[in-house]
Amino acid sequence: MGSICEVLEVPENQKVEVVPKTIFNHGFARIAEELTPILHEWIDRPLSVVEFQPDPEEFFKCKGLPKYTIEQLSSISYGRGDQFILDFGSHRVGYLSFHLSVDGVNIDAPARLRITFGEIPYDVTDNLHPCNTWISTSWLPDEVINVDWLPTDVEMPRRYAFRYVKIEIIDTSQKYKIRFSDIKIRAVSAVSPPTMSGVDILKTSDKELVSIDRISQETLRNCMQTVFEDGPRRDRRLWMGDLRLQALTNYCTFKDYSLVKRCLYMFAALPREDGSIPACVFEKPKLSAASDYIVDYDALFGPTVYEYTVASGDVQTAIELWPTVISSMQMALLHLDKAGKFNPDATKAWKFLDWSKGLDTAAGMHGVVLFCCKEVNKLALLVSKPPPFLDIVEKMTAAAMSFYDPSLGVFVSGPDRQISWISQAWLALAGVADAETCLTAIKAAMANPEAVKPLTPYAYHHVAEGLARCGGQEDCLKLMREYWGGMARAGADTFWEFFDSEDPRSSPI
Amino acid sequence: MGSICEVLEVPENQKVEVVPKTIFNHGFARIAEELTPILHEWIDRPLSVVEFQPDPEEFFKCKGLPKYTIEQLSSISYGRGDQFILDFGSHRVGYLSFHLSVDGVNIDAPARLRITFGEIPYDVTDNLHPCNTWISTSWLPDEVINVDWLPTDVEMPRRYAFRYVKIEIIDTSQKYKIRFSDIKIRAVSAVSPPTMSGVDILKTSDKELVSIDRISQETLRNCMQTVFEDGPRRDRRLWMGDLRLQALTNYCTFKDYSLVKRCLYMFAALPREDGSIPACVFEKPKLSAASDYIVDYDALFGPTVYEYTVASGDVQTAIELWPTVISSMQMALLHLDKAGKFNPDATKAWKFLDWSKGLDTAAGMHGVVLFCCKEVNKLALLVSKPPPFLDIVEKMTAAAMSFYDPSLGVFVSGPDRQISWISQAWLALAGVADAETCLTAIKAAMANPEAVKPLTPYAYHHVAEGLARCGGQEDCLKLMREYWGGMARAGADTFWEFFDSEDPRSSPI
Repeated sequence: MGSICEVLEVPENQKVEVVPKTIFNHGFARIAEELTPILHEWIDRPLSVVEFQPDPEEFFKCKGLPKYTIEQLSSISYGRGDQFILDFGSHRVGYLSFHLSVDGVNIDAPARLRITFGEIPYDVTDNLHPCNTWISTSWLPDEVINVDWLPTDVEMPRRYAFRYVKIEIIDTSQKYKIRFSDIKIRAVSAVSPPTMSGVDILKTSDKELVSIDRISQETLRNCMQTVFEDGPRRDRRLWMGDLRLQALTNYCTFKDYSLVKRCLYMFAALPREDGSIPACVFEKPKLSAASDYIVDYDALFGPTVYEYTVASGDVQTAIELWPTVISSMQMALLHLDKAGKFNPDATKAWKFLDWSKGLDTAAGMHGVVLFCCKEVNKLALLVSKPPPFLDIVEKMTAAAMSFYDPSLGVFVSGPDRQISWISQAWLALAGVADAETCLTAIKAAMANPEAVKPLTPYAYHHVAEGLARCGGQEDCLKLMREYWGGMARAGADTFWEFFDSEDPRSSPI
Repeated sequence: MGSICEVLEVPENQKVEVVPKTIFNHGFARIAEELTPILHEWIDRPLSVVEFQPDPEEFFKCKGLPKYTIEQLSSISYGRGDQFILDFGSHRVGYLSFHLSVDGVNIDAPARLRITFGEIPYDVTDNLHPCNTWISTSWLPDEVINVDWLPTDVEMPRRYAFRYVKIEIIDTSQKYKIRFSDIKIRAVSAVSPPTMSGVDILKTSDKELVSIDRISQETLRNCMQTVFEDGPRRDRRLWMGDLRLQALTNYCTFKDYSLVKRCLYMFAALPREDGSIPACVFEKPKLSAASDYIVDYDALFGPTVYEYTVASGDVQTAIELWPTVISSMQMALLHLDKAGKFNPDATKAWKFLDWSKGLDTAAGMHGVVLFCCKEVNKLALLVSKPPPFLDIVEKMTAAAMSFYDPSLGVFVSGPDRQISWISQAWLALAGVADAETCLTAIKAAMANPEAVKPLTPYAYHHVAEGLARCGGQEDCLKLMREYWGGMARAGADTFWEFFDSEDPRSSPI
């Protein structure tokens, strides 16, 4: 899910770009095209008209209380300056429609409405405009429409992601008012409702975990459209790093291997001249590479192919994508010094890991790249190739310990010896030391108030997975209950792009 | 054409309405339906991008100067906060479309545009919002659109009437800007361009008259759609009084008898229980009567049928509509006192004549009703019926002189003996006295600074026609040069709904 009014800064190196030429692989693009899913569609209706009242107990300091039933709504006439807020009960992705009836002697003018789609209360309780942000304000989820020839059905042609819909009646005329009925959303996803309801993996009666699991599935389902979208609200784009985590979750739930395959071929269809893979690709109006490039996202292509192959058993795809897997590692490996240590300053290319401010990426990127080399070596075995990175793995594993501070029991990064959760997590996932050392390092960073904390669920995932893989299952569960459970307690019906339990204004969504 | 921000008051008797039941005549409605024209369509393109500069010589105190050619425009990139104004050279009615190209590394957001359609400079130089008016602000001619998946063609689905188009780029994104090309309007009218260019009735080389004639024809052509619209900009409705004058002009120019016939049947399909005819009917979403009722518009149905019959030779229609003609006179005749004098206070029904403030309608309405009775008597002869209003005409003609003030040489109206141009005009058109007396009366009112002047072209028409029919052709021409010529000099490309040569802010459009 994407925040509307984010205050994040675009990294400097993103601002001026010389984009390498893209080589368009028509064969791969055709395979991706043929795998385009026909989306499932179903109808959902709002539960009620709500009114937000102040409530200090709530995360957003306000609570939507039912004001009218939808049946009552259909008998209320609205004119100039009126407004109301619909609550669909939880998060939806799709197309809104409704019927407009009229009360009055003459329908002598169009009806002009402003329709605002909200994921959280502030979207519909605050004014969206003006909005100071570097993100395009074209993403603000509101539409002004003029409806001629009432009574009529109104179908909103653009897709929106929302739980709440605010409808403001800018004007009708002195001679008539309007009534709203048959309000519905044609919800869309690559995942059908039966598939969704058929998922039953969580063998627990722990209500909190069940809730987190349900919200996770809703989030994933709503992101699974004709690609794995990073979020269905805003840019709706296919990013490599997000794809990998979504695909992993998908293997445990909806098992839509075809959509993952399609996305892998979309990336593979758009290599750059140097063999690297864009961080993100656009599906519409036609398949094309974004100018964004992220070293870690490039390298994560190989692991994503490996995990797909293991989950699906589709070795043929891995064989076909093998050359792309190899070339997608080149840029990452360029950053290794003679000792095999990752040096972020070797190129100006963007190393992401997380949005957290001031993060030093040396240690974390070392972990990512080592992890990727290991996964690609495993993939080699599946496609009957010699593992290409055996030497590099050995060298990088040894070099990894140069990040380790035995006195503190953590990995440190950069000239300022920065301690961050994400450094520990990625070096743990790369298996640079035994499980106990890695677990201790992660827990030490987490216990250190000076340590750089993750900002995004993307980074929190790697911390949680690092804990779980190093024997810290209980610590992992505790983190899940705090972070994702915190969002659940805050009222999330899908997980947000940022979350700060202390500040509802900065965190969502 | 309709003003956007009119400050006129709705008459009190319009505000609370008990609308008599409408009887729907399915046979007449079917005939009207079958006569629906297939509109002619053609493509027009803007002449240039203009910039408005202050110019005290111009009526609107500003002048649009060419800034870019359309070819130049197509090479200019626009982003957040930019705007430009297109000039189509003269007034158009139709559907705007354009192509949006992109410059930039990523098209990672929609483009959000505000598009404002202007008939006069102020529409595009001023901010439309906020607009304090009793007229629905839904008529404000602007749209906010969000365009996904660039580059793309954009087709605006709603019809607009305009000369100028202001395009404001609310946002693109930091990564791309947009360029505009292939900007065009699919213009529509029931009158084809060849029909329009084939009209050649004005045997004069007088440039001013040629100009007035050309603007008149443009105005009429743009109003002739699937009905005769009172104006294509705003409510686009079919009003009886406007229809009559438009039909008369049409007989001299485009000779589209079928569209007049269709409109007559639309009114005839919607009589009210008391036999009266609504002032206005709605065509969409289905044929229905407006609640508006105007006594003079009701009575003018008969003359309109008569004039249609004479122009077209289609007596069959007149025979079929004869019962409607008779019943449409009943409400008007209800206002006659025992002496046959029109008493506006006999009912609360709206007597219009014109929008001029404080107008006393007694004398003018006496003229209208007498005129209508005479025309219906003439129609009776064409449909082989006995003229129904011979006695009434005699009585009303005699009673008319009770409005005459011999000492002033004008007709006066109401308890305050109000002198207005329109009283003289309608009594002249009704032929209540010899031509010389009538002509003298009109000219005396026009020379009297205290007299109530007309406000609308609708009323000015009746004054001009009154002059011409009473031997005052030269006076008529003088008035035309002043009033319609004044609009032409002010830069009108179609005639406006109001015009005050002293005040550009109050007059258009």
